[in-house]
Order: sequence, then C-alpha cells, then structure tokens
Amino acid sequence: MIINVGRQLGSGGRTIAARLAERFGCRFYDRELLNLAAKESGFCEEFFERNDESKNFFKSVFHLHVPHMSDGSFYNNGLSQESLFKFQSDAIRKAAETGACVFVGRCADYVLRDRDDMINIFITANEDDRIKRIRERSGCEEAEAHKRISKGDSERASYYNYYTGKKWGHSESYDLCVNSSILGIDATVDYIAGFIERAMPAGDNTERK
Amino acid sequence: MIINVGRQLGSGGRTIAARLAERFGCRFYDRELLNLAAKESGFCEEFFERNDESKNFFKSVFHLHVPHMSDGSFYNNGLSQESLFKFQSDAIRKAAETGACVFVGRCADYVLRDRDDMINIFITANEDDRIKRIRERSGCEEAEAHKRISKGDSERASYYNYYTGKKWGHSESYDLCVNSSILGIDATVDYIAGFIERAMPAGDNTERK
Repeated sequence: MIINVGRQLGSGGRTIAARLAERFGCRFYDRELLNLAAKESGFCEEFFERNDESKNFFKSVFHLHVPHMSDGSFYNNGLSQESLFKFQSDAIRKAAETGACVFVGRCADYVLRDRDDMINIFITANEDDRIKRIRERSGCEEAEAHKRISKGDSERASYYNYYTGKKWGHSESYDLCVNSSILGIDATVDYIAGFIERAMPAGDNTERK
Repeated sequence: MIINVGRQLGSGGRTIAARLAERFGCRFYDRELLNLAAKESGFCEEFFERNDESKNFFKSVFHLHVPHMSDGSFYNNGLSQESLFKFQSDAIRKAAETGACVFVGRCADYVLRDRDDMINIFITANEDDRIKRIRERSGCEEAEAHKRISKGDSERASYYNYYTGKKWGHSESYDLCVNSSILGIDATVDYIAGFIERAMPAGDNTERK
C-alpha cells in the first residue's frame, strides 16, 4: 500500500502523513528522508563525484520546488534538473518496492502512477491556521508568514504541474482532499484513516480503478 | 446546517447530495428546485412581466453556466446577468433561512459565505465512470460524453470562478473533496456523512472557523 500526501504549506499535512504512516505501519518518506534514500542507494554517486560542493549543492537541489534553478552552476555539471528528478523518482520507486510507504509531496503520486494500490491525499487548512502554524514553527512575523504561504504554494504548484501534467491542489488530482481546520489534526488523521481502510481492506491488492 | 455540494459532470455528485439531504433531514435544492423557489418567491415577477417568452427564457437563463449569454435578447429586457444571479442568490438565502438545506452547485457556498454552520463538499470521479454515467443517462456515444465532460467542467468553472472569486474544483475552495470512484456512491455517502457528523455534532451551532 502506498499513501501519497500533498499539502499546502502550514496545513499540518506532514504531521498527518507521519501519523498515517504510524497507524498503518508504513515507512514514512518526506523530502529529507527521500534525499537520504537517494544518496544511500548510490543513484547519486555520479552526481556527487562531479560536484565539488556536492553536499550543499545536493541539499539545495532537493529543496528546489521550481522547474528552473537560480544556481547556474547546476547546468555546468552536466546534470539537468530532469536527471535530478529522475534520481529522486528512482529513490521513491525503490522505497515503494520495499513495502508499504507514506510519501509526502515529491510528485510520488505521479512517479508511482502505474500502481493500483495507491491512495492520493491532499491537505488544506484555513489561512489563519496556516499562518499560526508557520509562525509557531519559525517564529516569524505575520506578514512574513503570509509571504511564505504565497511563495510556498506557488513553488509547490509549479514543481508539481511541471512534472506531473496534473494540477497541484486541484481535487481531480487526488482521491481525497481534506481541510484539516474543520476537524483538527487528530480527528482528520482518524477520518482519513477511515477512507484508506474502506478503500483498501487488509490483504486486498486487487485493482481499484 | 447547510451542506453545499459542487461536482464534476457525471461524478454522481447530485445523487450523493440527495442522499445526504435524506440522511440529515435537509431540504434538497438542485438547479430545477432553486428555479422553482425563485419563481414562487416572487423575486422574478418583474422579470416574467418583462419577457414575452418568459417561461422558456427563464428556463434557459437558469441553465446558464457562463458569465456571458449567447441570447442577445437577454440584455434587451433591462436585466443583467448579475440581476439573475441575485434572484437565484435570494432564493438560496431564503431557502437557507427556513432550515437545514443541501444545495447542489449554484455558488451557494459563496452566497451563504457568512454562515458558520456550513460544510462545502466537492465530488469528483474517474473519467471512465463519468463517461459511463453520462452515457447511461443520455444514451449518447462515448465521444459525445467526452465533449460534454469537457464543456460541462469548463462552464461550471467559468460560472463559479466569475461569481465567487474562488477556484472551482480546487481543494482550497472546499472543506472536503472526494473521488466517488474509490468507494462507490453508497460508501461515499456514508463516508461524507461521517465528516458532517464530526464537523457539526447535533445541536452544535457554535462557530467552527
């Protein structure tokens, strides 16, 4: 079973995804863990060899959300962003082969689109809750939190739309979209778990769609 | 309690909305019933008096999904589309005042946006299920069903985006979006009912947002 969780910045989506992973005994992969997996799997050896500032650069690359990099040096190393997307996609596929996973973002729903044991979820939240969550996390001012929301959503949408050909955050790209402000984080986790249990009864790996 | 249900053409959203109304003892308003309510309430008397072909014209107007009418005669009667939107909005508000309601489409979520006892839901479905449903309903060919989906979604989006300033079908415009193909119509009704029950415990009319 694969659960993919897309989310608005500050929606609590990452927390919800982690709780779902715990609930269903799935491995949990967010951006950082996928980077590590990609690195450990050896997919990026070539990349690391070619790059003097590999560690920082690698880090910066996987924090990228937009199709075009501001760092010109990137293109001088003979690796396109498409290659990097491929590295990460390989890490996602490899992780998915090892068993049940929850992926947060990273277009995993697109990378694994041929699988029929997958649930795609998107988490939103009311703007005031998003602002509050971002401020608690980073200690920034309200105006700065608004800026981060606007920039974060825009970057996630660009990245997702570019690679998947689907629309980030649009209901038709997902099986279930929930505003976490309505029930709160705990009850939203329970509610989504109910969907997954109904959609994928234990041991049922027959085609759903 | 107010439940608003937006839906892709052929998603089963209207059926789901009707079942939710039955389940929660709400009055059910789709386009036809809202037209009737608008007419009966007397809001449109002026409109009917001004128009020779009032009945057919009235019908055509409320089937409109796009901001601009192809029927030029419309503008010659001294009533703008904004007035018509207002007639319909008044009917929605009046219906909502009488008690618990389920509204299908018609931007009711926007019209009633100041209420705090409202749940906004959007229903999608896999394309093959939508095609099948449209063909069963109208007996049309597959190519024609594809055309209707494309046209229907586009018109609904234009209408909704124009009047509400929100994005039709985008998760951030709703509290809950569900793909009815995953669980099927019956289980989707049950699942959505669970959300409504958790979000609005009986008798709880306190502010949610």
